[in-house]
Amino acid sequence: MPAPSRHSRLSADGPVLDGIPEHGRVPRYYAVKVELLAVIEELGEGAVLPTERELCERFAVSRATVRQAVGELVLEGRLSRRQGSGTYVAGPKLVQPLALAGSRPGVRPGRTVVTLERRPAGRALATDLRVTSDAEVFHIERVLLAGEERVGLESTYLLAERFPGFLDTFDPLSACPSGVEVHGAEERVETVLATPREALLIGTNPALPMLLTHRVAWGRDGTPFERVRSLYRGDRLSFTTRLGRDG
Amino acid sequence: MPAPSRHSRLSADGPVLDGIPEHGRVPRYYAVKVELLAVIEELGEGAVLPTERELCERFAVSRATVRQAVGELVLEGRLSRRQGSGTYVAGPKLVQPLALAGSRPGVRPGRTVVTLERRPAGRALATDLRVTSDAEVFHIERVLLAGEERVGLESTYLLAERFPGFLDTFDPLSACPSGVEVHGAEERVETVLATPREALLIGTNPALPMLLTHRVAWGRDGTPFERVRSLYRGDRLSFTTRLGRDG
Repeated sequence: MPAPSRHSRLSADGPVLDGIPEHGRVPRYYAVKVELLAVIEELGEGAVLPTERELCERFAVSRATVRQAVGELVLEGRLSRRQGSGTYVAGPKLVQPLALAGSRPGVRPGRTVVTLERRPAGRALATDLRVTSDAEVFHIERVLLAGEERVGLESTYLLAERFPGFLDTFDPLSACPSGVEVHGAEERVETVLATPREALLIGTNPALPMLLTHRVAWGRDGTPFERVRSLYRGDRLSFTTRLGRDG
Repeated sequence: MPAPSRHSRLSADGPVLDGIPEHGRVPRYYAVKVELLAVIEELGEGAVLPTERELCERFAVSRATVRQAVGELVLEGRLSRRQGSGTYVAGPKLVQPLALAGSRPGVRPGRTVVTLERRPAGRALATDLRVTSDAEVFHIERVLLAGEERVGLESTYLLAERFPGFLDTFDPLSACPSGVEVHGAEERVETVLATPREALLIGTNPALPMLLTHRVAWGRDGTPFERVRSLYRGDRLSFTTRLGRDG
């Protein structure tokens, strides 16, 4: 799973142009946010941000204004809050390849199992896996780690009849059951807000924008065997995909 | 640009499991949100939601609770607000293929030009396009439409020396300059918050989570010629990508 990619052709930069409205009336909190971005740049990753009070004095604005600016930078992953030790400059977002089921070259996933059960597929899953609603699936729910950091929550649904010995060879760390060859996959990405349960498991704020991916993978015979729903912290992850041939 | 895909192997459903915390203490607003999802399902697309007051009575909760639940459903694109006419049930998110520069089969883009200029590339862009900072680029900024609806904002940067006649043949509706063959592309997706200027141009709320894609495209010789930064309303768009062969 996620590890900073070293092979991207895309720079890690933000907007090429900044976001000043053309009518010239910049909301105060946004002006502070732009100034804070310069402060962040100067301080560098891991540095502690000056206190709210110091920022109020420096920019001659109210606490509410500083809070809104800092709050947006936290949601966007530029700043991070540590309980009891203030706000500090976050590292760059991790980069994760899309639509690669199974092994991801150069990427060492960390996973902690939360749920492991056998249950009927149900309607939505049955449609994706082209089975009846009462077909049984293994459901494995795992917290995704990048080093020590919890960055996501992954729910894997596997057709039980395809993997009779699954529980005997189950590897909590592996993305895919052993002996499975992924022939193709389709993945969809969208942005959602974390539910309370998800926020609790990932250890984050329920208001945080998350990246949600749905993946269906199929084998050589074209029959889907797996559906994976993965939720990633939007402040910590980004996804890449590549089409066509290299330069 | 975006049009609902009919060929996805993924169902449009939400989470396969819902988001109830295991410790059993569901925040009140979240319980209302889950109930509202059932109401939305029942009402169907385009229907008007009961008033705040009616919902308070129905669920026996405060206005603040109803507002939080409705607010999250608006951010997630399940509900939509129309000035003066209340809150109604939104349609499903549109699906957009990733990493396809140029023409997108079956998809008819709408675009409105906001900016058209020739300027030096600058540092970040120069890195991506493998040129010096003072190399000139065409910058085309366009609001993206799906029918009548503004759904995004696209900034295209093209190396000027590669497209000397660009301005003469410029087509406001086309994603790509005429005569360009895209050989490969890399695209990155992340979630960000709209800046005030972007929110103004797209006609949305600055607090709305947006999907941001960065794309670099290269030609037959492997040299990058284009960088595109596209911002999409997270409540209206999702992205798909596909790997390997079909079933």
